[in-house]
Amino acid sequence: MLGSTHGTLTTGSRRARVIACGEQPGPAVHGRPADSDDLDVSGRPLYADVPDLDRFFRPESVAVVGASDAEGRPNTGVTRQLVRWAERVGARLHPVHPTRESVFGLTCAPSVADLPEQVDLAVLLVADPLPVIEQLAEAKVRFAVVFASGFAETGEAGAAAQARLAAAVKRSGIRLLGPNTNLNAFEHFRDDLDGPSIALITQSGHQGRPVFALQELGIRLSHWAPTGNEADLETADFLSYFAERPEVGAIAAYVEGLKDGRAFLLAADRAARRGVPVVAVKVGRTETGARTAASHTGKLTGADEVVDAAMRQYGVIRVDGLDELQDTAALLARARPPRADGVVVYSISGGTGAHAADLATTAGLRLPTLSPTRQAELHQWIPEYLNVANPVDNGGHPVGDWRGRKIIDAILDDPEVGVLICPITGPFPPLSDRLVQDLVDAAEHTDKLVCVVWGSPVGTEPAYREVLLGSSRVATFRTLANCITAVRAHLDHHRFAAAYRSPFDQAPRVLSPSFRKSRMLMRPGQQLSEHAAKQLLRAYGIRVPREQLVTSAAAAVRAAGLVGYPVVMKASGAQIAHKTELGLVKIGLTSASQVRDAYRELTDIARYEGVALDGVLVCQMVERGVEMFVGVTHDDLFGPTVTVGLGGVLVEVLRDAAVRVPPFGEDQARAMLAELRGRALLDGVRGRPPADLDALVEVILRVQRMALELGDDLAELDINPLMVLPSGQGAVALDALAVCR
Amino acid sequence: MLGSTHGTLTTGSRRARVIACGEQPGPAVHGRPADSDDLDVSGRPLYADVPDLDRFFRPESVAVVGASDAEGRPNTGVTRQLVRWAERVGARLHPVHPTRESVFGLTCAPSVADLPEQVDLAVLLVADPLPVIEQLAEAKVRFAVVFASGFAETGEAGAAAQARLAAAVKRSGIRLLGPNTNLNAFEHFRDDLDGPSIALITQSGHQGRPVFALQELGIRLSHWAPTGNEADLETADFLSYFAERPEVGAIAAYVEGLKDGRAFLLAADRAARRGVPVVAVKVGRTETGARTAASHTGKLTGADEVVDAAMRQYGVIRVDGLDELQDTAALLARARPPRADGVVVYSISGGTGAHAADLATTAGLRLPTLSPTRQAELHQWIPEYLNVANPVDNGGHPVGDWRGRKIIDAILDDPEVGVLICPITGPFPPLSDRLVQDLVDAAEHTDKLVCVVWGSPVGTEPAYREVLLGSSRVATFRTLANCITAVRAHLDHHRFAAAYRSPFDQAPRVLSPSFRKSRMLMRPGQQLSEHAAKQLLRAYGIRVPREQLVTSAAAAVRAAGLVGYPVVMKASGAQIAHKTELGLVKIGLTSASQVRDAYRELTDIARYEGVALDGVLVCQMVERGVEMFVGVTHDDLFGPTVTVGLGGVLVEVLRDAAVRVPPFGEDQARAMLAELRGRALLDGVRGRPPADLDALVEVILRVQRMALELGDDLAELDINPLMVLPSGQGAVALDALAVCR
Repeated sequence: MLGSTHGTLTTGSRRARVIACGEQPGPAVHGRPADSDDLDVSGRPLYADVPDLDRFFRPESVAVVGASDAEGRPNTGVTRQLVRWAERVGARLHPVHPTRESVFGLTCAPSVADLPEQVDLAVLLVADPLPVIEQLAEAKVRFAVVFASGFAETGEAGAAAQARLAAAVKRSGIRLLGPNTNLNAFEHFRDDLDGPSIALITQSGHQGRPVFALQELGIRLSHWAPTGNEADLETADFLSYFAERPEVGAIAAYVEGLKDGRAFLLAADRAARRGVPVVAVKVGRTETGARTAASHTGKLTGADEVVDAAMRQYGVIRVDGLDELQDTAALLARARPPRADGVVVYSISGGTGAHAADLATTAGLRLPTLSPTRQAELHQWIPEYLNVANPVDNGGHPVGDWRGRKIIDAILDDPEVGVLICPITGPFPPLSDRLVQDLVDAAEHTDKLVCVVWGSPVGTEPAYREVLLGSSRVATFRTLANCITAVRAHLDHHRFAAAYRSPFDQAPRVLSPSFRKSRMLMRPGQQLSEHAAKQLLRAYGIRVPREQLVTSAAAAVRAAGLVGYPVVMKASGAQIAHKTELGLVKIGLTSASQVRDAYRELTDIARYEGVALDGVLVCQMVERGVEMFVGVTHDDLFGPTVTVGLGGVLVEVLRDAAVRVPPFGEDQARAMLAELRGRALLDGVRGRPPADLDALVEVILRVQRMALELGDDLAELDINPLMVLPSGQGAVALDALAVCR
Repeated sequence: MLGSTHGTLTTGSRRARVIACGEQPGPAVHGRPADSDDLDVSGRPLYADVPDLDRFFRPESVAVVGASDAEGRPNTGVTRQLVRWAERVGARLHPVHPTRESVFGLTCAPSVADLPEQVDLAVLLVADPLPVIEQLAEAKVRFAVVFASGFAETGEAGAAAQARLAAAVKRSGIRLLGPNTNLNAFEHFRDDLDGPSIALITQSGHQGRPVFALQELGIRLSHWAPTGNEADLETADFLSYFAERPEVGAIAAYVEGLKDGRAFLLAADRAARRGVPVVAVKVGRTETGARTAASHTGKLTGADEVVDAAMRQYGVIRVDGLDELQDTAALLARARPPRADGVVVYSISGGTGAHAADLATTAGLRLPTLSPTRQAELHQWIPEYLNVANPVDNGGHPVGDWRGRKIIDAILDDPEVGVLICPITGPFPPLSDRLVQDLVDAAEHTDKLVCVVWGSPVGTEPAYREVLLGSSRVATFRTLANCITAVRAHLDHHRFAAAYRSPFDQAPRVLSPSFRKSRMLMRPGQQLSEHAAKQLLRAYGIRVPREQLVTSAAAAVRAAGLVGYPVVMKASGAQIAHKTELGLVKIGLTSASQVRDAYRELTDIARYEGVALDGVLVCQMVERGVEMFVGVTHDDLFGPTVTVGLGGVLVEVLRDAAVRVPPFGEDQARAMLAELRGRALLDGVRGRPPADLDALVEVILRVQRMALELGDDLAELDINPLMVLPSGQGAVALDALAVCR
């Protein structure tokens, strides 16, 4: 399988076209595999192999090229770390140095060619790794790690050097980590910790430190891939590899930019199919962050809302802080699937309970009211006047004796309850020590999730350090916010995974009959006239108003008769934008004389404004409906994307829109609508009928098909407004803008 | 001053009316002080005294009523804590018990009357404190703390008992803390910590624990007021008292509900005038939280968006988590006023810098690009290829030697820079130990703010525990998010405080001439017709369209001629809602025949729908403008509030609105508009002219005046739409709904 994904993945800007119409698979072009089943209609892969990285992470023999034990040399520290690591894991280490006889007591080979055995992994500590790559290939080395910096992160010259390195690696068949990386993959992974592990992917090694340090709190880490500049192996490779590892409970990733959008989606799809949670920090919320990240690793960051949508499509949980990454990944790795989505907040103070319930509800967690029977049971041990409906407030005292455990067990016994959250805002040993022990004991006897928030900022208390961190069954947090974020992610993940259907299984592989029709309408490098853009939509089965393009007042009157009064008239031309502002639209014309006047007025204005017309459109007037926007834009990272939002002037002002990266199915098209703040407009407000959601969803899917088939040739498509008529009556594209590349 | 605020504060629902017109102050009614200068035109106070609580927090002599030293009695633990506290602070303690001779070796008085001296404070550990109150008054005790629970937090009977207790306290002149409180005010406050302190107010004692524990991290706490049920002393009293204490650097509050909205605003105003930052958690983001909090302390929580607005009006910084409360209060208490608002992120890794810059920028911090000169200076010590524009990435190595301090000093020396944030994501002692020491040293030599984020989840590292926590000049955080939140709050607070002008100084004290006109239009218990509601607006100088109410088709045609074509016609009646949905509005009528037809159609529909009409309105048609909404509603906690938002159907769908609690000035009216997501509509989009913002602001202020003067009698007012015309042309209320109480 090694290297099998090489060269089959494409970015948005470098894809090839598979020319084929109808239902027959067509021939491949541009050196792609003849089996077009592996590509969708846009020429992007539908499948990626998983690289076999077993021997990378657990090599039996390692060569260190440029090894040193001389005091004060930078390579000495690295070599020492590798020697210790090899001793610990029982790997054979072979220093390579042209002049030294031995390093740290180990015999040196003068060159890679002189290695005493075929090694799994070579660590290159040399400033220029390029010449070594060919030697490694000849010595049948499978993996290399390149430390050297000064590549894509330094600018154009560095990027060119990186491209040469990548080409050499590709020729060699070796898989390479780096350049500009380090030894994080060969740190000290504790082997005394049980349970599912976290596997970690970070582009910047330093940013992985806090997650790696979770081992000191008793949480198992199994892998760390510091991907650096990703000249070869990239985040997606590790994502798919970790998703297949049985010991991995969750994947934590810190991503600055991605090398290939589609490769990332395919890897995330693999994790989603296998139900392995992925939690990620993705830098690039702002221009500052994106620019800085790009300069740091020389990768693409993509438009942030597109990255955000793509992650959600594949169930990747995006968080912002490294502390959230730690807490969320730790919970998702270790918690069993939830038995129910009900959350109970349990505390020794009504104030704590009210506060926690408030924040949990705000975050979208469901806090069911406990049944009267359950409340009566709890009131055996908790005074009557205290609230036990949820949150459960025990008032403090019952925690100090045998009643404490009874209460916890009774809550966990409730079939509505999947999660118990117990915020302990301050340690008060007479109560909190016993409470903590009861929670730890109860967690051993349930398959439900028990979470504790240890609110003390001090964090040196024995109840925290020894009892809570000593339990592998209780999930312990330092802040309520992180607890709630993690629990929400846990419930969301399992809901998502249970319902997941891969969009790649349903993605179109062959061009539709619409494609051939559309080809004749495209005008490379031009913006199409409104009339032509609408014909493009019609080719893809999207309804447009009855309309005729006319070039005389008399023809306009004839057209109006055919179209049916009242009519709308608009100036039409290839380069017209802002028609409304220029007065180039006339609505509600009800008579031949009005049509004649409008024709004259429109052509007069166009002459005055210096706008070239190909005629005047006489269109059916469509009034009763909700104005929406549906469009296609191109993302640097993911290629064409589909957007839906409120139409008219509001799309600009409120930016109330949802975006998706193809391929996606009907479920995601509906999910887009659910994301809109203004979605109530579609449901019908102030007595208006509900809009035809099915028709809107159908338009979104047809636009996706256009985006996939026309690909880069369609630089931009805006349908605005798409008038969505009352339920059962369809949707009509009243105006459209299409720009060809 | 003691007790002087008693009975002068009012809630929204219990206020009295000051009847006065014109510019003359009128007589007070309902037992209010004759000096109406202390009341605004709504009858609410414009001033509150600060209670003198010095002897409450630092009493020289204390009586403990119900003291015990018998093993196993609940009062024994409390008595022991008080005895120890008295020994520590040098207060004289007098146990009171009817039968015991001594408690913990201290002579018991059989009753309060038998106390050997006049004590400052009595701690009541008895189940029923009511009978003791009178004895305390006779013994001239100044303060009491009541532990007993079972009052308002338990339901109606408890609330009645609390009302009796409150009445007795009011008669007595004593100031009382509680009931349902504890000894948090008399905890162990460390006296070895320097600098400005945090004063803490919590309704639930337990929720204050994490802030109080900051002392263990070296941060000074000076006071803790656990207010409990607030039968007498309330959050506002402590807020204003702490705002006057010279040692207090910041006030941290945990609020479940407020006893009196106006009292809170006056206290927050005092803190704002004095520039003392207030950081608060306020429970009640959700219905669940609000309900639970209400049942916990028996107080009003208020509509959350109104509480949120009120806090912002007075610069109170609202946070959600107790960890944010700790971190933000600690920074605001200790940091000096910022020298500049520019923030530099400095790190040893490009990834860390990119991530931190991303989140800081998202949060609205300004990260200025350092000047070329400054960058050249930094590149003396940092390799050329690394980014030093901001974030500053040093690549790691310079931190390990003398260059590290040079870099920090150069950054802090920049006049654009007010804050340096250094995220240390993982401890790596060879670099991070020296970095931490350099930061601590540099912070000693600058008046700029130095923040460190210690990202390790472990938190037992010496560089953190000893060096960072040992510094009173470096602000140390455990998460990047909390650091950014706190820095943002710090900059916002000082910006706010510098510009603050108290709205109470400008609040109207006498009724306007408009008030008398409006009285004749009010119809108690009724919804006014559209025409009457518009007359009410006219009385307050708000422009309405030219319109006439007619009762025949012929009169309609005459009216249209006077109003001017085109006209709008609407059915008018006292109880009509949803006119548009019922077809009771006709727009764009351009001829007498259209007006006649419209009159017939409107009256036909009204007959068919069974709607009683008082006539048909013939109105001037106003088209070109931005439709807005301005309204008045009543809040349980704060009384009348003013809302502005996008008008038309969008106010319902998008809830894009901003609210303010009167009194507020023009600055806040403008700030309301800045909060709207759709504010670009007002600025002019797609070539439309900008709207008349000044006129919109004027309408908001006139509506505020109506809300204040008509008060409870005006249950609801909606102007929707208010058509805001292009700049310089004013704003017209096209429709209005007014409900009288």
